[in-house]
Amino acid sequence: MQLSSLLPALSWARTYNGKLLTQDVLAAVIVTIMLIPQSLAYAILAGLPPEMGLYASILPLVLYALFGSSSSLAVGPVAVVSLMTAVAISRVSENADISSIEAAIALAALSGLMLLAMAVLRLGFLANFLSHPVISGFITASGILIALSQLKHILGIEAGGHNLLQLGQSLLQHAPDLNAPTLAIGALSFMLLLGARRGLNPLLHKIGMPADRAAIWSRTGPVWAVLVTTLIVWGLNLDQRGVTTLGTVPAGLPDLVLPVVNTELWKQLAISALLISVVGFVESVSVAQTLGAKRRQRIEPDRELLGLGAANVGSAVSGGFPVTGGFSRSVVNFDAGAQTPAAGLFTAFGIGLATLALTPLLAKLPIATLAATIIVAVSTLIDVKTPFKILRYSRGDFAAMMATIVLTLAVGVEAGIVAGVSLSILLYLYRTSRPHTAVVGQIAGTEHFRNRLRHQVLLSDRVLSLRIDASLYFANARFLETCVFRHVAECHKLNDVILVCPAVNSIDSSALESLEAINQRLASAGVTLHLSEVKGPVMDALERTDFLNKLTGKVFLTQYQAVIALAPEDFDRLDH
Amino acid sequence: MQLSSLLPALSWARTYNGKLLTQDVLAAVIVTIMLIPQSLAYAILAGLPPEMGLYASILPLVLYALFGSSSSLAVGPVAVVSLMTAVAISRVSENADISSIEAAIALAALSGLMLLAMAVLRLGFLANFLSHPVISGFITASGILIALSQLKHILGIEAGGHNLLQLGQSLLQHAPDLNAPTLAIGALSFMLLLGARRGLNPLLHKIGMPADRAAIWSRTGPVWAVLVTTLIVWGLNLDQRGVTTLGTVPAGLPDLVLPVVNTELWKQLAISALLISVVGFVESVSVAQTLGAKRRQRIEPDRELLGLGAANVGSAVSGGFPVTGGFSRSVVNFDAGAQTPAAGLFTAFGIGLATLALTPLLAKLPIATLAATIIVAVSTLIDVKTPFKILRYSRGDFAAMMATIVLTLAVGVEAGIVAGVSLSILLYLYRTSRPHTAVVGQIAGTEHFRNRLRHQVLLSDRVLSLRIDASLYFANARFLETCVFRHVAECHKLNDVILVCPAVNSIDSSALESLEAINQRLASAGVTLHLSEVKGPVMDALERTDFLNKLTGKVFLTQYQAVIALAPEDFDRLDH
Repeated sequence: MQLSSLLPALSWARTYNGKLLTQDVLAAVIVTIMLIPQSLAYAILAGLPPEMGLYASILPLVLYALFGSSSSLAVGPVAVVSLMTAVAISRVSENADISSIEAAIALAALSGLMLLAMAVLRLGFLANFLSHPVISGFITASGILIALSQLKHILGIEAGGHNLLQLGQSLLQHAPDLNAPTLAIGALSFMLLLGARRGLNPLLHKIGMPADRAAIWSRTGPVWAVLVTTLIVWGLNLDQRGVTTLGTVPAGLPDLVLPVVNTELWKQLAISALLISVVGFVESVSVAQTLGAKRRQRIEPDRELLGLGAANVGSAVSGGFPVTGGFSRSVVNFDAGAQTPAAGLFTAFGIGLATLALTPLLAKLPIATLAATIIVAVSTLIDVKTPFKILRYSRGDFAAMMATIVLTLAVGVEAGIVAGVSLSILLYLYRTSRPHTAVVGQIAGTEHFRNRLRHQVLLSDRVLSLRIDASLYFANARFLETCVFRHVAECHKLNDVILVCPAVNSIDSSALESLEAINQRLASAGVTLHLSEVKGPVMDALERTDFLNKLTGKVFLTQYQAVIALAPEDFDRLDH
Repeated sequence: MQLSSLLPALSWARTYNGKLLTQDVLAAVIVTIMLIPQSLAYAILAGLPPEMGLYASILPLVLYALFGSSSSLAVGPVAVVSLMTAVAISRVSENADISSIEAAIALAALSGLMLLAMAVLRLGFLANFLSHPVISGFITASGILIALSQLKHILGIEAGGHNLLQLGQSLLQHAPDLNAPTLAIGALSFMLLLGARRGLNPLLHKIGMPADRAAIWSRTGPVWAVLVTTLIVWGLNLDQRGVTTLGTVPAGLPDLVLPVVNTELWKQLAISALLISVVGFVESVSVAQTLGAKRRQRIEPDRELLGLGAANVGSAVSGGFPVTGGFSRSVVNFDAGAQTPAAGLFTAFGIGLATLALTPLLAKLPIATLAATIIVAVSTLIDVKTPFKILRYSRGDFAAMMATIVLTLAVGVEAGIVAGVSLSILLYLYRTSRPHTAVVGQIAGTEHFRNRLRHQVLLSDRVLSLRIDASLYFANARFLETCVFRHVAECHKLNDVILVCPAVNSIDSSALESLEAINQRLASAGVTLHLSEVKGPVMDALERTDFLNKLTGKVFLTQYQAVIALAPEDFDRLDH
């Protein structure tokens, strides 16, 4: 029982059978074919040797299959995390005597350990800080940066930079060095990729292929693009004419090595690793939950932390870079019929075979084709509808989104996400710092009390009833003080203030202090403070303090009882 | 109308009369006598020449009287802000070619401009980030650091440092250099100060002085300590025997000079200036509100920002350092009968006179006396009861307080307050990230629905009713998804899910996205999503989106209507 909760693989392995095996193997074959070009491409996007993409697609998949909880999530290198990796490792390898490879391995190790620590310490809630507008804006802006960063490979020029300005300047500066054969290969790749994506599905559908199988075939564009362009480069010797190819990719499985613990390097990478962990985790969980729901399978975020943490540590010890669950591959895995995490094990086996046997065939694969694959893949990340939707719904959320997009593009991925998260929290605290309050009065002939601004109600000059429509905590505690004293300064005949609390779910220490201050200050002005309709848990908490002893007035169960006790002549007394 | 809202002085000046004048002048005389030694002492605490304390007590008071809103707040140098100033200026004058004086003036200018900007941009809510446990812990820890930092003046040794460890080490190391006459003067000062504070009040009371006047006299200890010890040092020539005195304090009013705008220096001081502004603002407003309430006067936080901002800019242009409203002086001002901000004008006049005429008399004033004044003043800041009170009330708030105290003592004031604020926000987001939810069922024979865990209720296998007891926003949006799908994974006969929303005050974009995801994922699992008892403003917001079109189920006005429509056979149908 204990063991299977640590190792979820034990629960599905017990009921594994031939039918599940057939389905998982079929899905694994399809995902493997998709993953080979993607893993190479994302390694290049991260600024790393292509074989590291393959390494990041073997052991991580095995470990996720053992520790993760989703039966459909396809773990491996993904676009946004690869871009974040590129930024982090280029920063440390600029300053220090560290190669990009070492930095990438350290980043995967650190990110894996952080995810494991978050799993153990139940810190999965940290992912909640990434609000939807922030993550959506971040992914759109990252998509634009990724596409721009790959343009140099399509044009066959040198260029670099981590934000819009640097990339744009660098591309313009080197544009004259354009290599025509590379551009031709890039253009051909785009045609094959877009053709497969847009044209193949309806075509296969027309010749009578079932919809689900046609959908899978239409995702094989990258494979065709790789095959066709590699053959062309090989046949026409285009690598002699300036077309950059992968060249010699070392064959064989990666060695397992413990990453060197370099505290200085880890310190420099810590923030990047945290951001990568959280972004990767949020992405994975949302994909896993979307797919899990289709089969009524439950995804536990804390379990996913464990699976992704193990996968990243696995990536580090086998010479890879940070990995997470990717959206498009997971959908293919699901559609192709993957039934258990074993599909991931078989995919790892497939990539392992490819690493042993296929690498010589990759020598003539043009980088431009891989860049085109990336650009087409990330084009789906760029989301122009959501900003308008969010603008209509909430201006604050829109501001957080725009700050994320603008800062990601103008400064870089890390500044963008940090600004977005900070602004979301700031805006939330701002919004809740001025909660809705209403002076309420009695609706004649009833026990109901309503906002005096919206209803015809009975009021009293001597008793002020103020309803607070929010939980009280540090961000709105002082507002409450200001609000009460604004009303008190206005009514000079006032004897009693009643705070009407049916919507107050909790009161923290700051708010308690404010209530005490209000009580004391009202007393020094000769006004008595009462509470009414206090919720049970709030009352329990207040009873642990001496506030109720110090309170100059009473706590009334209902607002009606309060006003009848304090100013019976001003309100309607009902006979029961 | 417009002008008097910018310059509140116009409103009280219009009705000013002889009686108010007499009361204000009397209060000003008393506050002036108190402020002379305090202003010198706090300048020394800030690591600045004593005359800067006097300068910070002239123009700032005039400007606060013109722009501030409190009739009792006594603005000037205060202990905690002076300590924060010491830390900030020692950091920049260590690294750069900047004198402490220039740095302190720049800090006052920056802090003043920030407060003015906060007033104009209505950013006063930033002060809400300082929760009560954080500010209370911070002030206690600062009090300890201040007292320790002054010990060297009592012992007549050299020592320094900005945290407990540095101060302790430095004091122990230099303890052998102890100067006996200095210690004697310090001890005498303590006796006079504590004697006046504890003994004078009952004594004067006994001889028949009215309580309020006795209270004021009992606060004049610092004046007596200064007079007595200065005379002793002068009479016994103790300055020849190692007792450090103020020495020559330049006479005359400060020159008005615009502070030099040194962007590099301002950049280095920006964070410190922000912390000083916010801490000073919170302190001032809480004092002003406490005193204002006693006369039913309204304090507007945004107006206080203006007053304090003007005061700090005034301090900068007249060679002072950051100022704010101090607690003890404001209480004296209030008790002595200050009726309008004019009392501040008269105090400024008094300090101006002192600066012109009294400085020669200060030459033999021993620093040990000023240090004793500070130690006695800050001893009231150290609050040992509040931590226990907060521990009983809330462990999370206690953790934030302890983090603030420990980090302030161990690292320094800035680290302490930043850690406290971050932890408060983190803990708040954590607490609200797991809101209370309950599966509700019908209480037989009624239209009431209650938690199935607490009441005997009617439930249905096919309809799940989930009540959410919180507003939905980014920090709890994903929790909601997880929560719904945990229940769905448990009930395999489920056809309908109803989210019961009477306690949902708002839904942000992230939560809306989660609701859309829940709706869509439930649909892919063959389950219909409904809402019931949605509040008006939330419904208005949802109607601006296409969520209600996409919703697979309906929005029901009441939960009773919902279950009767969806599973009439499982619930009690009531005839009306």
